[in-house]
Amino acid sequence: MKKLVVLGSTGSIGQSALDVAGRFPDRVEIIGLSAGTNVDLLAEQAQKFKARCVVLKDERTAEDFRRFGLSGIEVWQGMEGLCRLAALPEADTVVNGLVGSLGLRPSLAALDSGKRLCLANKEALVMGGELVLKAAREGGGELMPVDSEHSALFQCLLGGKRKEVRRIVLTASGGPFLNWSKEKMALATPAQALKHPTWQMGKKITVDSATLFNKTLEVIEAHFLFGLPPDKIEVLVHPQSIAHSLVEFRDGSTLAQLGPPDMRIPLQYAIFYPERLDGPAIALDLGGIEMLKFLPVDQERFPSLKMAYRALEKGGTAPAVLAAADERAVQLFLEGEISFGEIFELVGLALETHRPVLSPTVEGIEEAERWTHQFLAARVKAAV
Amino acid sequence: MKKLVVLGSTGSIGQSALDVAGRFPDRVEIIGLSAGTNVDLLAEQAQKFKARCVVLKDERTAEDFRRFGLSGIEVWQGMEGLCRLAALPEADTVVNGLVGSLGLRPSLAALDSGKRLCLANKEALVMGGELVLKAAREGGGELMPVDSEHSALFQCLLGGKRKEVRRIVLTASGGPFLNWSKEKMALATPAQALKHPTWQMGKKITVDSATLFNKTLEVIEAHFLFGLPPDKIEVLVHPQSIAHSLVEFRDGSTLAQLGPPDMRIPLQYAIFYPERLDGPAIALDLGGIEMLKFLPVDQERFPSLKMAYRALEKGGTAPAVLAAADERAVQLFLEGEISFGEIFELVGLALETHRPVLSPTVEGIEEAERWTHQFLAARVKAAV
Repeated sequence: MKKLVVLGSTGSIGQSALDVAGRFPDRVEIIGLSAGTNVDLLAEQAQKFKARCVVLKDERTAEDFRRFGLSGIEVWQGMEGLCRLAALPEADTVVNGLVGSLGLRPSLAALDSGKRLCLANKEALVMGGELVLKAAREGGGELMPVDSEHSALFQCLLGGKRKEVRRIVLTASGGPFLNWSKEKMALATPAQALKHPTWQMGKKITVDSATLFNKTLEVIEAHFLFGLPPDKIEVLVHPQSIAHSLVEFRDGSTLAQLGPPDMRIPLQYAIFYPERLDGPAIALDLGGIEMLKFLPVDQERFPSLKMAYRALEKGGTAPAVLAAADERAVQLFLEGEISFGEIFELVGLALETHRPVLSPTVEGIEEAERWTHQFLAARVKAAV
Repeated sequence: MKKLVVLGSTGSIGQSALDVAGRFPDRVEIIGLSAGTNVDLLAEQAQKFKARCVVLKDERTAEDFRRFGLSGIEVWQGMEGLCRLAALPEADTVVNGLVGSLGLRPSLAALDSGKRLCLANKEALVMGGELVLKAAREGGGELMPVDSEHSALFQCLLGGKRKEVRRIVLTASGGPFLNWSKEKMALATPAQALKHPTWQMGKKITVDSATLFNKTLEVIEAHFLFGLPPDKIEVLVHPQSIAHSLVEFRDGSTLAQLGPPDMRIPLQYAIFYPERLDGPAIALDLGGIEMLKFLPVDQERFPSLKMAYRALEKGGTAPAVLAAADERAVQLFLEGEISFGEIFELVGLALETHRPVLSPTVEGIEEAERWTHQFLAARVKAAV
């Protein structure tokens, strides 16, 4: 019996995780859930899955939740609540479906306390890669990727040893602007950026798919997750989103993982690994696929990708600044404060300007994040 | 140090195996080689690799070999020599690159004596599946597939347990007649059938790729090799020959193995497994691939494929009859005795007419083979 905590249970990943739990009531028990402000849905989930603890954003939302009068549920709040939930002794598996930098501390808490951490929150690894690995090592926790690309890589890597890997290839759908000109793309609206061709996801990650910053973060994530040097990590555009990633071994043999674009598949794999249980999704109809394409990334139109390598080269807090700058820039874009093209500019500028602190603590990472927010605020203000 | 015997060393598979051995002189020692009638090349190979024993087809070719006056090489002949070579105590690994039904007894000899058998000879498993598995079990031998498709499946199956497999998909290049009409194909010449679009191989297997009997044999081979029921084994046409095969697991996740069409890759993998050494081939340029297609097999134009399932359904000696009928029919076709279309007819007729003997001995299988040859001879004579 898996004793599960789902962080961010009302989001896209969280709902998929609960779908998996719902299909295997004899194999999964929900111990705790967390949400930001979607109190109604959290209350519904907590009742349905008989959760023992929930965490909400703050005192106000926690109070709203208490008004449902659900008995026997402990209600906590904020980052302290999230970390307490992630480390709960009654649980053994934590799904982290939080969005953004919020995901770092609860990830460390889960690994420190020896849990299996099913990590969908890229930022935890991008911002705190070394710390996350250290927490897993010292706390006895286990890191399982949930991102479809990293789940694919994890599965392909079962086919050989790490030192036998010649390169790994992360695939990118290319997002809604794959075939747009640079000029047209620079002025794309939020509505246009939120129309993803193949995946249904949250807003932040959907915009990241349009800028390809999603791949930027994934390159860094893969570096930490699989211990591979940046020059062994490549990205190819694969518009069909069917081959989720590939591993080429030194003998010239390549393994690829394919599947329908459904996050429940990698979630279920991460929760139950090494076991594979019956899947939720319709099988891949290979005979119905007309073709699978793989194309190089247009680095001119998508200057985001090379920032992954630049951030890893700078090291220390540089990837954290990259992730924080992207997170805030996407927010500014969705609020209509900056153009689509300015996302690239602002993130690039923050990354170049930042002086990285090597081997940072959590506080050091959060300090770099604050610096980034101030830097972006000043740039945006100056531009007005 | 791998102590290698290569059966059929002057053929396409054998030469590739020696190429692998030549690239890793510190890892591979050649103990013995065998050839049919290509005495000159065998002598050259035996000298270069310092083989201790060679086997030739018969007394005459053995005598021709002895005339080279190579010292310290034992020279044996015929099936008895092949089996003795395959079971040689000094060797630990046997590559079986023999063509046709000839491959069965030496395969049994290798497995009976506890060797790793790198099997490129499909017929051994197709004709004597149960016997081959029994020999491996009882003799402590190990069966490693060399066929690119089965090597691919072996690698993909590392990603899960056998009971978690929903289906496996063998890919077929489709051969030179993929887009020919049934009428045009029926009258194809040997020269046309020998023009394979993607692989450079021996004559028998190249014609088998044109009829798709190659896939028929591979379905049966996969059934025995991986212990999967026929209804979990499918075939899709994939004209690029880049994805060599796929495994779909019950959770909806599919693993595929890809690589350039170069038999040295699966050979090297089979010899050194679980180690992967540096490959001989140029890496797969995924970014240069415009598309990968997967299409269903046209069962009307290629009636060969369903004979795999029919033979497994009949069981016992039926697959042996299928393989023997195909082998002889290809021979008759290459000799100009029958048309391309008649290959399908003759094999189908032999399969339907044959009354299978269940759980046959080697002698029982060879008896079924003789029956098949007589049956085909009578049909061809009647048609003249």
